Amino acid sequence: MNDPRDKNSLKIILDDASDLSLNQIRQLINKMTAPEIAHALESSPPKQRTLLFSLLKTEEEGDVLFELGEEIQQDLVSNISNEELTEAVKELELDEIVDTLQNLPEERMSKILENMSMVDRKRIQIGLNYSDNTAGGLLNTDVISVRPNNSINEVINYLRDQGDLPENTDKIFVVNHQNEYLGELSIGKIITSKLSMLVREIMETESLPLDVDLDDKEVATTFERNDLISAPVIDGKGKLIGRITIDDVVDVIREDADQNLLGMAGVAEDTFAPPGRAAKSRVFWLSMNLVTAFIAASTINIFQDVIDKIVYLAVLMPIVASMGGVAATQTLTIVLRGLTLEQINASNIRWLFKRELAVSILNGIVLSILVGFSTYFWFKDIIISVLISSALVINLISSVIAGIAVPLVLRKFRQDPAIGGSVVVTTVTDVVGFLSFLGLATIYLI
Amino acid sequence: MNDPRDKNSLKIILDDASDLSLNQIRQLINKMTAPEIAHALESSPPKQRTLLFSLLKTEEEGDVLFELGEEIQQDLVSNISNEELTEAVKELELDEIVDTLQNLPEERMSKILENMSMVDRKRIQIGLNYSDNTAGGLLNTDVISVRPNNSINEVINYLRDQGDLPENTDKIFVVNHQNEYLGELSIGKIITSKLSMLVREIMETESLPLDVDLDDKEVATTFERNDLISAPVIDGKGKLIGRITIDDVVDVIREDADQNLLGMAGVAEDTFAPPGRAAKSRVFWLSMNLVTAFIAASTINIFQDVIDKIVYLAVLMPIVASMGGVAATQTLTIVLRGLTLEQINASNIRWLFKRELAVSILNGIVLSILVGFSTYFWFKDIIISVLISSALVINLISSVIAGIAVPLVLRKFRQDPAIGGSVVVTTVTDVVGFLSFLGLATIYLI
Repeated sequence: MNDPRDKNSLKIILDDASDLSLNQIRQLINKMTAPEIAHALESSPPKQRTLLFSLLKTEEEGDVLFELGEEIQQDLVSNISNEELTEAVKELELDEIVDTLQNLPEERMSKILENMSMVDRKRIQIGLNYSDNTAGGLLNTDVISVRPNNSINEVINYLRDQGDLPENTDKIFVVNHQNEYLGELSIGKIITSKLSMLVREIMETESLPLDVDLDDKEVATTFERNDLISAPVIDGKGKLIGRITIDDVVDVIREDADQNLLGMAGVAEDTFAPPGRAAKSRVFWLSMNLVTAFIAASTINIFQDVIDKIVYLAVLMPIVASMGGVAATQTLTIVLRGLTLEQINASNIRWLFKRELAVSILNGIVLSILVGFSTYFWFKDIIISVLISSALVINLISSVIAGIAVPLVLRKFRQDPAIGGSVVVTTVTDVVGFLSFLGLATIYLI
Repeated sequence: MNDPRDKNSLKIILDDASDLSLNQIRQLINKMTAPEIAHALESSPPKQRTLLFSLLKTEEEGDVLFELGEEIQQDLVSNISNEELTEAVKELELDEIVDTLQNLPEERMSKILENMSMVDRKRIQIGLNYSDNTAGGLLNTDVISVRPNNSINEVINYLRDQGDLPENTDKIFVVNHQNEYLGELSIGKIITSKLSMLVREIMETESLPLDVDLDDKEVATTFERNDLISAPVIDGKGKLIGRITIDDVVDVIREDADQNLLGMAGVAEDTFAPPGRAAKSRVFWLSMNLVTAFIAASTINIFQDVIDKIVYLAVLMPIVASMGGVAATQTLTIVLRGLTLEQINASNIRWLFKRELAVSILNGIVLSILVGFSTYFWFKDIIISVLISSALVINLISSVIAGIAVPLVLRKFRQDPAIGGSVVVTTVTDVVGFLSFLGLATIYLI
């Protein structure tokens, strides 16, 4: 797992790929695990990535494809033939096949399904019915289930007959004749119980199964809060249809966190996306920012006269705007984090708003004194110093309103509250910053 | 786990705590699990939080304390007596006790250790020796180990004698007489193997154990890449000293992601921190931004003459600065994500830089055309329009240099590359934005 050989292989491939012969690279890859190869691919620019992938054996391709992020996965899949792809995914688990195939164009998908056995096709089509962002999208059908009247001895013999247990099997499930979920039985419990005991006597019934329609973020929260390794999934009628395992949940947690970080900056791309795609992913929020920057500029435009008379207003006005922008982003970040962790709700939002207001007033006092003195020291003008201090306090208060309202409103309209949030909140603080500073100057200086 | 009763309790407590009698709240809490109570505490403002915590039974306090974030945990711990704390943590696992105690003041810690049995004290002191951010800080000593010459039958009998297996036990470990790690044996394998087989015949030796000094983020990466549930930890001499389980690793992943998001905005506090603490956590980067905002203002100050002559330069200049700021934050975010996922290294940084440059030129062309036309439409001045377009392209290129160099330099000096990164990069784009636009205007308009 933390094998120095593999680490070296990875480093050599990433650092010196250009100096190695294809055969040497192939030998190095053979020593690496699928997740390590996937990491090497994700850390490679597009050309090198395609080359590396082409060196993989077909039977390895499936495991590697599944480990990759969606964007890179689709890129590589689009370069291989239907036959090769069918061969590659054959050995994967159901949820992995579904995950790998579900973003393919309709036509290609049906061609690949045609190449599979009837049983596989049916199982995959069931998986494809569930949305990517629900428990159904994460579920695997490799469940082992027993009946409440089985003895532990029978259970152990049954498990022996199975040969190797599926990965991440920490428990098996108990169902009745209609396949309705009744409870669970941990492997540890099986091994440490008397052979004559009945499943119904030692099964655990306290924790409830996950509903197939449950949002994947809620699945992640449930796993985190209860330290689960695996959990049963039931359909609307209470029937056991599969299980979710922690490895897939960890991916959800990682992606969720990733989306918050990337969303705030208005980017959505993998690290080594080609320039065209990266430019496209970013241009939308840059263009939005262009619109909002012109809105802020029109605010300044109202005050041409006063700037014309007192030119150092133009020198100082970005300070007020910039401070408001940083404060608003701070509030926005705290609210986003609270929303992601499901900590914020109707009962505490008022307290949060008051707290943010108190923070902005506390910091407003400190910073307005600093900014006032600095301005006086620079321009020796007491009125301007008082004006900029007052404008700063006003703008910090506006930053609280923007930082809290924007993500909540986006969420209300079922938009991701992180996406582009910082562009919108800084528009508010830019406009209020210019308006308050130049407005006060117009009132008191002309 | 996804029990609607518990969900309701949580909702009722959070929404209507003020309308319920203490006894009613106590009854609701009794029905909740420790992680659910912890979540309720983390979603409560400080006063309500202290009240809720005071309603817990002492034997529950330990489990709840461990589930809490560090900041809230320390707040609550500081409110209870040494005796109560000792009682509360008694039932926890070793890594949990260490985690809960390690931030206590020296004096308090030794008083609590005095109250414990000799054995517990020794075990805890071993745990306290490891840094919080290493494999040692995550490790638990509840390992089950067997010898290579044991038969599966012996192993099963040994496990039966243990009674309940420790949580998250998916495998046991194989050691020699010197307790040196030799391999591992999954519980599934034990249950499905013939009773007469020897441990040495079926044990897994391919995956290497984790070193106790390994960075906790690398531990998380190892778990993620290899879909581990638990992993053995060895000391410098190869002796097995404990194991790490996935539930603690998930916390590391969550915290790591959290730090990136919060760090970029220059905040470091829990969602419902009291106003004083929140203000304190944010004032540093606000003050830094004040300094950098004055630096940007001094850039404008150089150009007082040209602004005095053509006042709408003051109207337009924030547009150039703002666009550069958004672009720089986008580049910064991609670099930070790549660093967190260990995708960026010496071999691909040059490719990344070229890609970012290409992106900024591609988007620069699109945006400078947009900004040029908008400006011409507004002020009907062809020269100003060309100038602002050119300044925008210059600033987008500077945004790439800032967005890539700042996190790499911070990392070089062993600082968290996320902390305050956006304040620093936007300073660069503010200064370059004002300098290029007003500078070009001075050259071509005066």
